[in-house]
Amino acid sequence: MSDFVRIIEVAPRDGLQNESTEISLDIKRQFIANLVDAKVTEIEATSFVSPKWVPQLADADELLQGLPSGPLYSALVPNRRGLDRAIASGVKRIAVFTAASEEFTKKNINMTIEESLDEFKVVIQGFREAGGDFVRGYLSTIVECPYAGKISPAAVVEVAEKLLDLGVDEISFGETLGVAAPSEIQRLIEAVDKRIPREYTVWHFHDTNGTGVANVATALDYGYRAFDASAAGLGGCPYAKGAGGNVATEDVVYLAHRMGFETGIDLETLSRASLSVLDALGKSPTSKAQVASLASMRVPAESGR
Amino acid sequence: MSDFVRIIEVAPRDGLQNESTEISLDIKRQFIANLVDAKVTEIEATSFVSPKWVPQLADADELLQGLPSGPLYSALVPNRRGLDRAIASGVKRIAVFTAASEEFTKKNINMTIEESLDEFKVVIQGFREAGGDFVRGYLSTIVECPYAGKISPAAVVEVAEKLLDLGVDEISFGETLGVAAPSEIQRLIEAVDKRIPREYTVWHFHDTNGTGVANVATALDYGYRAFDASAAGLGGCPYAKGAGGNVATEDVVYLAHRMGFETGIDLETLSRASLSVLDALGKSPTSKAQVASLASMRVPAESGR
Repeated sequence: MSDFVRIIEVAPRDGLQNESTEISLDIKRQFIANLVDAKVTEIEATSFVSPKWVPQLADADELLQGLPSGPLYSALVPNRRGLDRAIASGVKRIAVFTAASEEFTKKNINMTIEESLDEFKVVIQGFREAGGDFVRGYLSTIVECPYAGKISPAAVVEVAEKLLDLGVDEISFGETLGVAAPSEIQRLIEAVDKRIPREYTVWHFHDTNGTGVANVATALDYGYRAFDASAAGLGGCPYAKGAGGNVATEDVVYLAHRMGFETGIDLETLSRASLSVLDALGKSPTSKAQVASLASMRVPAESGR
Repeated sequence: MSDFVRIIEVAPRDGLQNESTEISLDIKRQFIANLVDAKVTEIEATSFVSPKWVPQLADADELLQGLPSGPLYSALVPNRRGLDRAIASGVKRIAVFTAASEEFTKKNINMTIEESLDEFKVVIQGFREAGGDFVRGYLSTIVECPYAGKISPAAVVEVAEKLLDLGVDEISFGETLGVAAPSEIQRLIEAVDKRIPREYTVWHFHDTNGTGVANVATALDYGYRAFDASAAGLGGCPYAKGAGGNVATEDVVYLAHRMGFETGIDLETLSRASLSVLDALGKSPTSKAQVASLASMRVPAESGR
């Protein structure tokens, strides 16, 4: 098995869209430049969602112009209106978004799962025709839905197979609520691994209740080598206001390196990368590996405030 | 295997001794009363270490008088001078402290491992003769030492067997630095499990770098059912100033309950238990499960400041 672990940095998109404070275009650009300095190789930079719904990312078009070269950048495209903007921006990677729970897609994107897949078919085809390279498919609420409760592994696999049939290049399996214990991820993996090739699989854990790193460790144990993560764990949980967001990239990088994997990422540079964003959000670092790394460099953890 | 997970709450001792701010006797008493309200059943309340070395716990004798009944209380006894104070206090459970690393015991308690075991022999015998019930043996630096680097599982097992020979009732295996990945805990468990009965084994993880909960999950997977933990993750890491301390009890309780285990502890009450201590320390909660629990009750996470 590969000793390289892919980290897809999602803070600029998934992190900031879940923070209620808007971050200026300048700070976002500097943040991404800092991530590039830390040798992050894949970054989801923004979303072409309607600015009415997510004003935090209304600057998507501008942001994508003039980003530092090096990483692969992607942008979330929720529908065909977003696709037109994505194509105009020249971004070569997009992500589409659905869920394993009907209730969640209805409340979150106002479509059934089937309708969301129909929309993606058009989006993916249009993107390919316009010369796009790569499509990620987000599949969220893989363990639990805030409206429908527990989700069965079979329901997750069913939607995942449909996403593969649509021609996505990878699926990001999202534990959206950050509630799952590793035992639940083990059960889910036993189902997913039979049907979805590992090279198409990325795990996307949230850390609302402190189990995010344990879930990453579980997927690593099963041989998975690709994870979404968010610098400084940016991004709250809209279902538990004030609680944690995505699993922190610093924590995932620390874990991976300590287990002997390579990520290509410099943990110390990464730990500093988010400080001006945290400052703008009025937050202190909460990722343990980030705090420890800052402490070892004698950077006060409060310098993010 | 049992579906009950024992949690030994160590914040009043291991947590507060590593916080540089002194907490008043009143706040400590209220903290312990709050822990009792949360149905915590085992609490390490204080230490009979010399007040010269740990002024934060100089009130050990006073604190142990008049604690609410219910839990089993223990106190750390570093040497025979501490034993006299422990016996006078009437505490029925004590803990002794050594390490798997010679360099660590020399720097930390100014003894070789062998000298520390000789001292314990006297302490344990004196405690038994005075009618003491139960002795915990702390065995720290089980993965890495700040002075000697990596520690071999064989070295850990060797000291653990000597502790059992001395008649301790359980061994708390301490990952003092909070650096270990679950893969290292797996390797250590493979060695420990062959020689040390599980009913004598408690795991004591620190969460300096975000791997604490993952390490607890690993030990649970192997069938272990007893863990030290610290409310709110109190206790810094003296080797990384500003970094996290013990794994947070809230995170461990969340994990255990989510995996279907019982702990007897009420997570919401526990999440509030440390707020006045955090306030006195000028800290905000950093345990993810605590923050999420406070958020779900609409208690502002900043109410600890």
